[in-house]
Amino acid sequence: MSQILKQRVRYAPYLQKLRTPEQCVELFKNGQYLGWSGFTGVGAPKVVPDALAQHVEDNNLQGQLQFNLFVGASAGPEESRWATNNMIARRAPHQVGRPIASNINDGKTQFFDKHLSMFPQDLTYGFYTREKENDLLDFTIIEATAITEDGSIVPGPAVGGSPEMLSVSDKIIIEVNTVTPSFEGLHDIDLPINPPNRPPLPYTSADHKNGRISIPVDPNRVAAIVESTKKDVVPPNTPSDQMSKNIASHLVKFFRDEVKAGRVPENLHPLQSGIGNIANAVIEGLADANFKHLTVWTEVLQDSFLELFQNGSLDYATATSIRLTEKGFEKFFDNWDEFSSKLCLRSQVVSNSPEVIRRLGVIAMNTPVEVDIYAHANSTNVSGSKMLHGIGGSGDFLRNAKISIMHTPAARPSKKDPTGISCVVPFASHIDQTEHDLDVIVTDKGLADLRGLSPRERSRVIIKNCAHADYVDQLLDYVNRAEFYAQKTKSLHEPHILRDAFKMHLNLAQNGTMKLDSWDQKFD
Amino acid sequence: MSQILKQRVRYAPYLQKLRTPEQCVELFKNGQYLGWSGFTGVGAPKVVPDALAQHVEDNNLQGQLQFNLFVGASAGPEESRWATNNMIARRAPHQVGRPIASNINDGKTQFFDKHLSMFPQDLTYGFYTREKENDLLDFTIIEATAITEDGSIVPGPAVGGSPEMLSVSDKIIIEVNTVTPSFEGLHDIDLPINPPNRPPLPYTSADHKNGRISIPVDPNRVAAIVESTKKDVVPPNTPSDQMSKNIASHLVKFFRDEVKAGRVPENLHPLQSGIGNIANAVIEGLADANFKHLTVWTEVLQDSFLELFQNGSLDYATATSIRLTEKGFEKFFDNWDEFSSKLCLRSQVVSNSPEVIRRLGVIAMNTPVEVDIYAHANSTNVSGSKMLHGIGGSGDFLRNAKISIMHTPAARPSKKDPTGISCVVPFASHIDQTEHDLDVIVTDKGLADLRGLSPRERSRVIIKNCAHADYVDQLLDYVNRAEFYAQKTKSLHEPHILRDAFKMHLNLAQNGTMKLDSWDQKFD
Repeated sequence: MSQILKQRVRYAPYLQKLRTPEQCVELFKNGQYLGWSGFTGVGAPKVVPDALAQHVEDNNLQGQLQFNLFVGASAGPEESRWATNNMIARRAPHQVGRPIASNINDGKTQFFDKHLSMFPQDLTYGFYTREKENDLLDFTIIEATAITEDGSIVPGPAVGGSPEMLSVSDKIIIEVNTVTPSFEGLHDIDLPINPPNRPPLPYTSADHKNGRISIPVDPNRVAAIVESTKKDVVPPNTPSDQMSKNIASHLVKFFRDEVKAGRVPENLHPLQSGIGNIANAVIEGLADANFKHLTVWTEVLQDSFLELFQNGSLDYATATSIRLTEKGFEKFFDNWDEFSSKLCLRSQVVSNSPEVIRRLGVIAMNTPVEVDIYAHANSTNVSGSKMLHGIGGSGDFLRNAKISIMHTPAARPSKKDPTGISCVVPFASHIDQTEHDLDVIVTDKGLADLRGLSPRERSRVIIKNCAHADYVDQLLDYVNRAEFYAQKTKSLHEPHILRDAFKMHLNLAQNGTMKLDSWDQKFD
Repeated sequence: MSQILKQRVRYAPYLQKLRTPEQCVELFKNGQYLGWSGFTGVGAPKVVPDALAQHVEDNNLQGQLQFNLFVGASAGPEESRWATNNMIARRAPHQVGRPIASNINDGKTQFFDKHLSMFPQDLTYGFYTREKENDLLDFTIIEATAITEDGSIVPGPAVGGSPEMLSVSDKIIIEVNTVTPSFEGLHDIDLPINPPNRPPLPYTSADHKNGRISIPVDPNRVAAIVESTKKDVVPPNTPSDQMSKNIASHLVKFFRDEVKAGRVPENLHPLQSGIGNIANAVIEGLADANFKHLTVWTEVLQDSFLELFQNGSLDYATATSIRLTEKGFEKFFDNWDEFSSKLCLRSQVVSNSPEVIRRLGVIAMNTPVEVDIYAHANSTNVSGSKMLHGIGGSGDFLRNAKISIMHTPAARPSKKDPTGISCVVPFASHIDQTEHDLDVIVTDKGLADLRGLSPRERSRVIIKNCAHADYVDQLLDYVNRAEFYAQKTKSLHEPHILRDAFKMHLNLAQNGTMKLDSWDQKFD
């Protein structure tokens, strides 16, 4: 037993349950329901999942040792290894990684994606363990960075759905990660309380905390404790390119105009921002634009936020996970006192809570697969059928934010055509966010402010301001034809020609580009 | 001045502003922004709108005196008269009535539908008056049933968006309705407070009240007070037929099973239920099934709830409007003491609040236009383009409820075919509720419990349990073909053939039924 493990585990009885990862393998049976800690690829268990994967690989058990696996959002590379070994029969509510997505799209893994604010709560209701006799998860495997004197768990860089999973787990396995510093003091934990006894969430600002720094568990349920010295691996951030800088500059102008009109204060409202190069460019843009005293209420914090702190733009940030690169974490721990006083991690039920998001008037920004001319957005399924990652928190934030923004390139390359995929289409091939939820759409081309516009007004603004030049005429042509047709059938609210609505997608599948020869083109 | 008006208006200075409806006409100019009280056809202003309509009719001003009209939800027959006279240039967020829907679908009225919990809040943010210099509504015309000593307004049978509208109105006209008894004591009013200062809503049960019974206004903004003796007109309830009784019986069985499984308590959780014969049948079914101590947290109360009170099933009900028939209101006022202690009316921002709906674990039930095989639902646009009424509160409740239920007939008649319209389709022609929001779909055929199922599992359960017998094979055929096709393109998460996805709608438009000769059928 390492000295550092003894220091981290301040509740002695757990140390008697110490096992190696390999010794945990026997606890697992085919068909079990498992919860893992973790969110956006950090804070997930590592060594126990790896031992199980090794066991499957060594004994050729691929497809014979399978689990129903629930994680707050995405786990790390260990999940990919499980997927490669066909160990995941069912998965929710969000995932990232080629092998798991591939299993979902090959039909090997039954996946469902649920709003991240709702998934852990529905799990505590027993909705996802209906088939089980005892209604419980068989195991939750949680990564901890410390254990307090009463045996409660101090998570690492993610809180995610852990409080809820632990509350409905028959048994618990704790991986104490001793290679990372302890995150003690960085969390603000809410415990699940179900209706009819659930009280209001008290939070009225990003920095409002309740003071609970760890997750209490029933020590009798702890089946094993395991030391882990495996680090989280976060790939370097995608640098912002000219496309994303253009989007950021449209947004910064929009924010300035909103401040000028008095619709938001000078420090805006708490920001939510996603992952990726557009999100990073927006964060950089805000810093360059000299916005001060910003706050952040979001689901995941990345390296770019550290810079926003250090240049004095950002006062406080809260999320459910902090997904930093190795360099980012070094910087973070080197400046622990500064950063730990300016940010906290909450459960995803709270970070993504409609209640708090709406109360605070969050400004939400997310990237879709595509938007349509009437402001519906596809966040999940390419060409209607192929799962990317899942809805994540996009619906939680975009439905409830004060200003709901979707940012996307105007066009993306297909294999054949550098602008073969228009991100503005007549009818989104899958709809996750509706016209009732989006206020603003912005591309590198420009910004469409949709607040208070009817669908027909929206279509013109979106096409003219946001669509790529290669598609403006084609999309206007669709709208004009649809309006002509809808006049005859007295359906001019949101005019569509259902026969043609997906022709851009059909052409992409058949001819490698969304550029049509004509709207009369036929597809077999 | 009538004696009863003097009694009702307990703030004397208002009486000096008394005008006839006709004397108000001069206050209105083309292009103004107006708020009306009212929700689901009750509590809207009547005599001032009628005087304005009369003025337009007398002077042939159709299309020349037009307004941007905002109402909490739908207003009464006065709105229809305005629509007939082409007086509504822009309208949000919800409407009912042939003339207004007709103007929207003819392109005469720019309409946008927004979640009812969000619309009044966004109005206070200035989102819908962006084009105006002063950011304000020019007038709010509100129906009152009493005025308190400090000049604050006691609404009638609807609170709706009135508190928010009044807070951002340049001028206010109060119609004091003296033909109806005063509703004083029936309301529990929250006033708008915007971020960053908004506190939690305190409500932790349906009967939890804050005690404010009227809406304070700045008396200086009151431009006129008008006596109204025009009653609300609510058509008799649609009686429940065998179809709706079948739906109700599937639901009652589902609720009993949920109680048995321990997922909801014996008195269920607060119920939300919509308008129409299915909703009525469900309410009747719950009473017959001997559920006791039920509570209701919903947006509109109807006659059927009075019976639920009187047979002892219902303990407390709250909504933003009470839409009773004339008989219903008689019964209500005859038993005022009983009913007024068992129900209260709140603003729609509160009745439809995601915060409270989620906290209470509401069980939400709504009727769609159609659902699709993967559990997306169309609540608003027939065949994708033609507006019915608007999203209303369906998204507020279905997104946030503990159990989100959509009930619909399995099929509806078209002009040509008694089962010409399947309410289960491959791809909803408009999507308002997503697969991430619905837990249960129920038709007269049966019930599909979708919790925790992947899209491909959902499709089978929905088709087999819910689709009309005339469409089961056709829909299974779609799914099988889509899965075969998606296997080749590795898109098996939510398999679609986009080319065929709307063929049932196309066939309905072209041949009067959704029954296809074959999925290979072509449409021009």
